[in-house]
Amino acid sequence: MSRFLSKQYEKLTPYTPGEQPRERAYIKLNTNESPYPPSPGVVAIKKEQLEDLRLYSDPEAHGLRRALAQQYGVNPENVHVGNGSDEVLNFAFMAYATDGRGAAFADITYGFYPVFAQLNDIPVSIIPLREDFSLCPEDYFSLHQTIVIANPNAPTGLALRLEQVEEILLSNPDSVVIIDEAYVDFGAQSCVPLTKRYDNLLVVQTFSKSRSMAGARLGFAIGHADLIADLERIRFSTNPYNVNRLTLALGETALQEQSYYDENCKRIIATREACKARFHQMGFVFPDSKANFLFVKKEGANGKLLYEELKRKGVLVRHFEAPRLSDYNRITIGTPQQMEVLFQCLEEIL
Amino acid sequence: MSRFLSKQYEKLTPYTPGEQPRERAYIKLNTNESPYPPSPGVVAIKKEQLEDLRLYSDPEAHGLRRALAQQYGVNPENVHVGNGSDEVLNFAFMAYATDGRGAAFADITYGFYPVFAQLNDIPVSIIPLREDFSLCPEDYFSLHQTIVIANPNAPTGLALRLEQVEEILLSNPDSVVIIDEAYVDFGAQSCVPLTKRYDNLLVVQTFSKSRSMAGARLGFAIGHADLIADLERIRFSTNPYNVNRLTLALGETALQEQSYYDENCKRIIATREACKARFHQMGFVFPDSKANFLFVKKEGANGKLLYEELKRKGVLVRHFEAPRLSDYNRITIGTPQQMEVLFQCLEEIL
Repeated sequence: MSRFLSKQYEKLTPYTPGEQPRERAYIKLNTNESPYPPSPGVVAIKKEQLEDLRLYSDPEAHGLRRALAQQYGVNPENVHVGNGSDEVLNFAFMAYATDGRGAAFADITYGFYPVFAQLNDIPVSIIPLREDFSLCPEDYFSLHQTIVIANPNAPTGLALRLEQVEEILLSNPDSVVIIDEAYVDFGAQSCVPLTKRYDNLLVVQTFSKSRSMAGARLGFAIGHADLIADLERIRFSTNPYNVNRLTLALGETALQEQSYYDENCKRIIATREACKARFHQMGFVFPDSKANFLFVKKEGANGKLLYEELKRKGVLVRHFEAPRLSDYNRITIGTPQQMEVLFQCLEEIL
Repeated sequence: MSRFLSKQYEKLTPYTPGEQPRERAYIKLNTNESPYPPSPGVVAIKKEQLEDLRLYSDPEAHGLRRALAQQYGVNPENVHVGNGSDEVLNFAFMAYATDGRGAAFADITYGFYPVFAQLNDIPVSIIPLREDFSLCPEDYFSLHQTIVIANPNAPTGLALRLEQVEEILLSNPDSVVIIDEAYVDFGAQSCVPLTKRYDNLLVVQTFSKSRSMAGARLGFAIGHADLIADLERIRFSTNPYNVNRLTLALGETALQEQSYYDENCKRIIATREACKARFHQMGFVFPDSKANFLFVKKEGANGKLLYEELKRKGVLVRHFEAPRLSDYNRITIGTPQQMEVLFQCLEEIL
């Protein structure tokens, strides 16, 4: 830290991303990436597209917004695109939770929400999940704060049903409800259809998980045109060329090849369900995840030690050193072969 | 704008990027992109790199930071990389000009500075350039505010000498001085060597101009390790995977092919100097630009009309509707062939 840094940032605790080790090759099950590559069209990028990197991106992202609108049954003015969903979420925190209003979210959820709040000097209400990690919609009724819910939640994988989200929306007509659907394609219900009926609903999604493009940095939001205009206002005051030119093109291509990704999601769901049975047999317990990861613990086994021993054996999973979480590990669903190696390692360790 | 938007953003005037028209093909001389494609290695991206888009970027950008450090004779801890230099500049405004300190910059300079200030609720001191658009270093002595100088300046192209920047640094030991060197490779002196002696100097550069990668979104800052730690703190609280995975790799490749870009800069400088002679012959006046653009006006010719007539003829230049600027047009230096078309159009119009 320099002697020049503004006081408000001195105490900031930045987000800790999952390890991205470079010293050896791991079976990498720690950051919920897809084990499958992007679709054929994405990988077959053309030389002219690379030559055109000399030109700026379309700051309005016309093509990609149109393609997303078509895919999700909305209009382009209902779509905002960003440099990963983290950027989109930060813009939403800026737009809807500053001004003293504050933000409400669960004690156990995506670890970036408290960081966005601290960054933007936003007061926070932390709403504890139940003992079994489930979220109680009633806890979010009439809050008069911006509400942020990851659905499915991370790191638990538990999902709300549409009518549960709708109850929250109805009881908070003067607050924006942000539903972070990073993992929705692995079996939960998307709230996108509700955006047509609720002007206080912002749905955030990403190409990082089900669409195998974590490294391309592409997130998006869908909501009422006025909400999208707010996000665009902040984007154009921050970084109008926020999305890489190739990423805009590759995102459009990916949407044309949606069936490839649907197929991958089916495979990942099948692998996840098989892993659930296997973990169950081995005496692990876990919430019933609808995401591309499982959050597992075993009575009598130390979560941290398990993480460390797996790492030593070349399998990287995610361990959170936090209350209620430290007995668990979050394990990304990889290929069946990768999961087989994981289970072999677990059997050796336990 | 929605009824939910925080008051502080209601009056925000977002930045207006140069037109990126899609309705017809233009000779595009309006956003200071390079007319030459990226270097051969950048264009020869490998299939595995595209497949690896399924994985997140290295949030520490180890490889690229090491390569930049080597190129600029500093250490990796002196280098911060961002999603274009706009992101880097916004982080610097956040880090060093909030807290009531405020920021000082010229009346005529990069139009994003006032937007960053407004976005972050930063008080601003506007320091007018001289009549001839030159910047008077004495105006920046002992300001007790964060100082932001584009060098060369945009849209004028005028550059300060190193000793002039040094005087400003010496007289402001308790303020950060941000030197935005987006255009430095076209003939100005870089302040990077001064970062070793002044802990209050932050130099910001970009791959968008001399390195033909505007669409890849890659900017960086060089400065004292403590300043870089400040920017990293904000980056990890905003978007740790801020730079695209391909862009990190392509940036490294570009640095290995520096001679290609040096050659392009020489060509662009030669074209610029030839254009200066031609504009002079035609009765235009312009500051003596050290950048990849010229800021030209002709007595008796209306700047706005000239812009419009050029656009009608298929040549896009940048016109600013602002006091002191509206008689001028900013014209990016393209290939000699593109500039020939520009001059033919100008002759037809005038």
